[in-house]
This record gives sequence, C-alpha cells and structure tokens, in this order.
Amino acid sequence: MKLASLKEGGRDGTLVVVSRDLTHAVKATGIAPTLQAALDDWSSAAPRLNALSDALNAGSANGAFKLDVAALAAPLPRAYEFVDGSAYLPHVERVRKARGAEVPASFYTDPLMYQATSAGFLGPHDDVVVPSEDFGIDLEAEVVVVTDDVPMSATPAQASEHIQLVGLINDVSLRGLIPGELAKGFGFLQSKPRSALSPVLVTPDELGEVWQGDKLHLPMRTWLNGQWFGEAECGVDMQFSFAELVAHVAKTRPLTAGTLVGSGTIANQDTSKGASCLAEQRTVETLRDGKPSTPFLKFGDTLRIDVTDAAGASIFGAIEQRIVGKA
Amino acid sequence: MKLASLKEGGRDGTLVVVSRDLTHAVKATGIAPTLQAALDDWSSAAPRLNALSDALNAGSANGAFKLDVAALAAPLPRAYEFVDGSAYLPHVERVRKARGAEVPASFYTDPLMYQATSAGFLGPHDDVVVPSEDFGIDLEAEVVVVTDDVPMSATPAQASEHIQLVGLINDVSLRGLIPGELAKGFGFLQSKPRSALSPVLVTPDELGEVWQGDKLHLPMRTWLNGQWFGEAECGVDMQFSFAELVAHVAKTRPLTAGTLVGSGTIANQDTSKGASCLAEQRTVETLRDGKPSTPFLKFGDTLRIDVTDAAGASIFGAIEQRIVGKA
Repeated sequence: MKLASLKEGGRDGTLVVVSRDLTHAVKATGIAPTLQAALDDWSSAAPRLNALSDALNAGSANGAFKLDVAALAAPLPRAYEFVDGSAYLPHVERVRKARGAEVPASFYTDPLMYQATSAGFLGPHDDVVVPSEDFGIDLEAEVVVVTDDVPMSATPAQASEHIQLVGLINDVSLRGLIPGELAKGFGFLQSKPRSALSPVLVTPDELGEVWQGDKLHLPMRTWLNGQWFGEAECGVDMQFSFAELVAHVAKTRPLTAGTLVGSGTIANQDTSKGASCLAEQRTVETLRDGKPSTPFLKFGDTLRIDVTDAAGASIFGAIEQRIVGKA
Repeated sequence: MKLASLKEGGRDGTLVVVSRDLTHAVKATGIAPTLQAALDDWSSAAPRLNALSDALNAGSANGAFKLDVAALAAPLPRAYEFVDGSAYLPHVERVRKARGAEVPASFYTDPLMYQATSAGFLGPHDDVVVPSEDFGIDLEAEVVVVTDDVPMSATPAQASEHIQLVGLINDVSLRGLIPGELAKGFGFLQSKPRSALSPVLVTPDELGEVWQGDKLHLPMRTWLNGQWFGEAECGVDMQFSFAELVAHVAKTRPLTAGTLVGSGTIANQDTSKGASCLAEQRTVETLRDGKPSTPFLKFGDTLRIDVTDAAGASIFGAIEQRIVGKA
C-alpha cells in the first residue's frame, strides 16, 4: 500500500491511503488520524490500512477523491528520529581521492551514519528556503525507510522485520558550512537543515521484486532546472543494506516507531549514470579536470527526484522543489 | 509554573501541573492532553496552565492529588529535536590539555553543538539500560531548555523570547564508543543513547532571580552511589547563553515547538567544585596524576542529579537512576 498526509488537520497532517497509480486517495482517519499514530500501533493499523488500500485500488472505497500530489505534506511532517547513512562507498571513495586521502578499511564493514534533524520535513513540492546562496546549496537524492518500534541491539535480520515503509528523501545540504562544522568534530548541524520527503511512502510488499535484500533495485532519477542530472542505481554499490543500517543505529538504543533511516546520496562506480548530488558531480569534475565546473544551487533553481517502475510510472511520486531566499 | 507527565495515556504521557514544592499535581488534560500539545499551542495554553498552577499552589485546584515524583515519565517522553551544546569551555580546555591539543580560538565565539537523539527520553527514575559495561558508561549533568516555535535566523534576543521551559538532563554517554565515532567524522550516534529528563520542567518566570541572562545561576549537585560528586556552578564559565545556543541552531532552520537545547556538562575553572561527568573527573586526575583513577559506571551503580534553591528545596525534582545491563 501507499500512504501520504494531507496538509490539513494539524501539524501532523491527515493520513490518507493513495492508489497504486497515485491518482486517487481516501482518508484513513477511521483507522488512524495521522501516519505517526498508525506507526505507533502498526500491527493493528497496517492490516486495516491494507484492506482500505485494496478497496481503493478496486475502485470500491467510500469517500475516494482525486489526489493532487503536489499539494501533499510530507508523509511524516515531523518525526522523532532521522538517522542518515552514507552507504554508497563510491561517493566516499571519490571525495577522499579528490583530497588525496585514503578510505579507512573499517568504512567497508562499519556503516558511516549521522544523527540528522527530524523536527520538520518539507512537503514534496515545498520550497527549500535558505538564508543565503553563499551557503553552497545542494540536494542529496536518497532512499529512506521508516521503522516501527525496534528493540535495542536488534540484529540485521530482526531489523529487517521492522522496515515498514520506503520512500525518497532530498537531504538538503549546505556545502559551504560543512567543512567548518566537521572541523569542530561533532558532526553536522547548521549544514544539514530540513529535508523533503516524497509524496508517498510505500510498503516493501507493494514494491515487490524491486525490494530485495533490504535494498531498492531501481535507478534514482534526478533533474536540475529540467535537465537530466543522474540515474544512479540504488541497488548497486550500496555497501550496507537498510537492515544493516537500522541495526547499526539500534546497537545502543531502541528505535521509536516512525524512525527514518536514510541511505545517503546514491552513487555508483559507473560515473556515466550521473550523480545524485552536486558535491558528487563536482568531485567527478575535480578528478577529471582539476577543478569543479558545476555550481551549487542558486535561488530560483529547481530540482526533481523520482523513481519509476519498468513501465515508467512514478512509484513514490516525485520530489519537485524550488530554492528560494528567506523572505 | 512547573509541568510534568504521568506514565499513563499513551506514548506521550498525560500532562500535569505540579505544585511549587513538588508534593501535589493536577491533571491539565482540560487544557492540553500532553506537554507536546501544550507547546504546539503555547500562547493559548500557557495562560490557562498558569491559572491552574496558581489554583494548585493556593490549594484550590479541583482534582489535585499527592504526587509520586519517582513514578513520573520524562516531561517530554519523546520529542522532535534535541540539540546539545558544549557551552562550558573549562571542560573543553581540560580535555584538550590532557591530550596536548589547543582549543581553537573560534570555540570562544562559535558554539560547539551537536544533533542528539530526541526519540525517547527516560523518566527521572528510569534505569539506564546499556548492552555492555565495556562501553564506558558516563553521566553528564546538564541544564536543558525547551522552546516553542522559533523562526529561522532568529537573533539571540529573539530566541530568548522562545525559551519557555527549563529543566535538567542526564545526557548518558558511552565514552568507549566516542573516539571511534568521532574519528569517522560525522559526530555521535551509538555513543549518545537516550538521555533522562528531570521530573518537572519549570518556566523561566517561576525561577525568578536565579534565571538571569538566559542562564541558570545555581549549582548542579551530583552524587554517585550516594557519594558527593560535584556541585559545579551552572551560571559560571558558561561561554554561551541558552539564547545564543538556540540562535545558533536556528541559523538555517526554524525550530519546532518542543525542541530541547542542552548546555553541555557543567564544568567550572574551579575544580574544587567537583565534576558533572566522569570524563571530566578523569581528565582532572590525568592532568594531576598522569592517569585517571575513577572508573566509569558499572551495572548496579546509581547516580543522582539535583538543583536546589537557597532553602535547599529541589526545584526540578532529582534525576535518580541505576545503571543496568540489557536483560
């Protein structure tokens, strides 16, 4: 099934079930008022949401309405935890190579992850508001999963059972602020502001064969200002599965229902597939030409992130955003 | 006024107003079911909660009951954001000195802060569950503030107006996991599991004269296994006020109502005041004796964190916890 949130009913929106083709929806408020409430009680809510989804896709759901995907909130407009990974080692390898550094051997066995902000997620068509273009504005197109409650010290096999939803995320990054923050030693803060989520989140069973081994096996398609930017394969060069990433986070804490875990920007060894963030593209240029030629995003620039099935239909709905200055 | 949450009514508990002397409480569910709901609508909820608090302290609140502080949940059992600072530079200076490193000049003008987990806060008397003693279990006694909605790019003066509640936090730290995580460059994750909050959060106006310049001016009293451990002054050597810390976080993002911002472990230049975390004590020993002599916490050890007024009465209620292994 596919789940989304309307921009109505309060800070957490209103839960809707969305048809497979993203054209129709039906309010699920008889089951749970919000997606967070559904995740809080997932074992009870999921079967009922699935039944509503079956009815919607069969054309027999009472109260079904035509959906405007562009008007949706983030499926989780705010959440209790977001931990982002950096699971595509080609990205790490290239960034290190460009500055003449080695990738530590441990990076191939121990996931690189960081605590990110979950206090607010932008809707899929919301503007990205940044105080200054000088901050070096970048997108990062990623896959994200949402868990229900995960016990402390869960193994990857156990963690896999708690991955309930899959979606896309634009992990907005302010490259100009990153070197200073990382030099201080405590990770990202100002350099990683609010991210945007895809219009819908999708259950692994709905994804079928393209969800295998706790990875998504489809290209991440990105465009900047309407121009093709990349189509890196999400299922290729992902060093750690989502089950391994979730288990890494759970080593010393239980995860609360509604926790988001991100893959990191999608990057392949094969650079002909393009990139999923400007930092990656600029690193490829630096290794090839000695310096980057693609600038970071400016106010007025637009981005588009989408994943389509074999027939070309959008699975999660597209993230489509414009970069704007602070009013 | 003083606010707390009962361990009933669901994952977010049930909001109560607590008497000044912490002996009685009254449910505030007629105003807001949970503290998060009150913060979401603070300008409307706060005056009504204040009126209930006045009635409770006057002995005229309907439904007032005798409060068992030890049975409370964290005032916010889960929250959308927690950003922790390291505002006491004597701690940073000593840690650096012990490893023969300089403190960068920028640390005196640019706050050192990190994104922490907010997905679950332990109640004030809940056990600290850790998978292994080998992780180097430590407490960090800190002051924490809670904001309502803060606009992006708020100045410190503007941020000050959004500090609505003040409390204590035990920022549990796993010292054995920190060097490896910081070496990876992306900050803390496994090494900073769930923290515990004090029984009640208190409005700045209720604190009166001991809340000045967006700092708390009282000693942070800590005990380990019943023995005095420290009474460092919260109002001394705090390089950045809470208003400055909140503004630092808000530079590139708005803050959502219910955001927690921590001070970092309380540490003074004057080491006769003791410490607020074992890492600090061990650093003082290393500088004095060449090696640390105080071990980290073991299963069965207990800690107590409290702040008292001039008459010796607890203001926020004490955090009292036992360290236990994972069952």
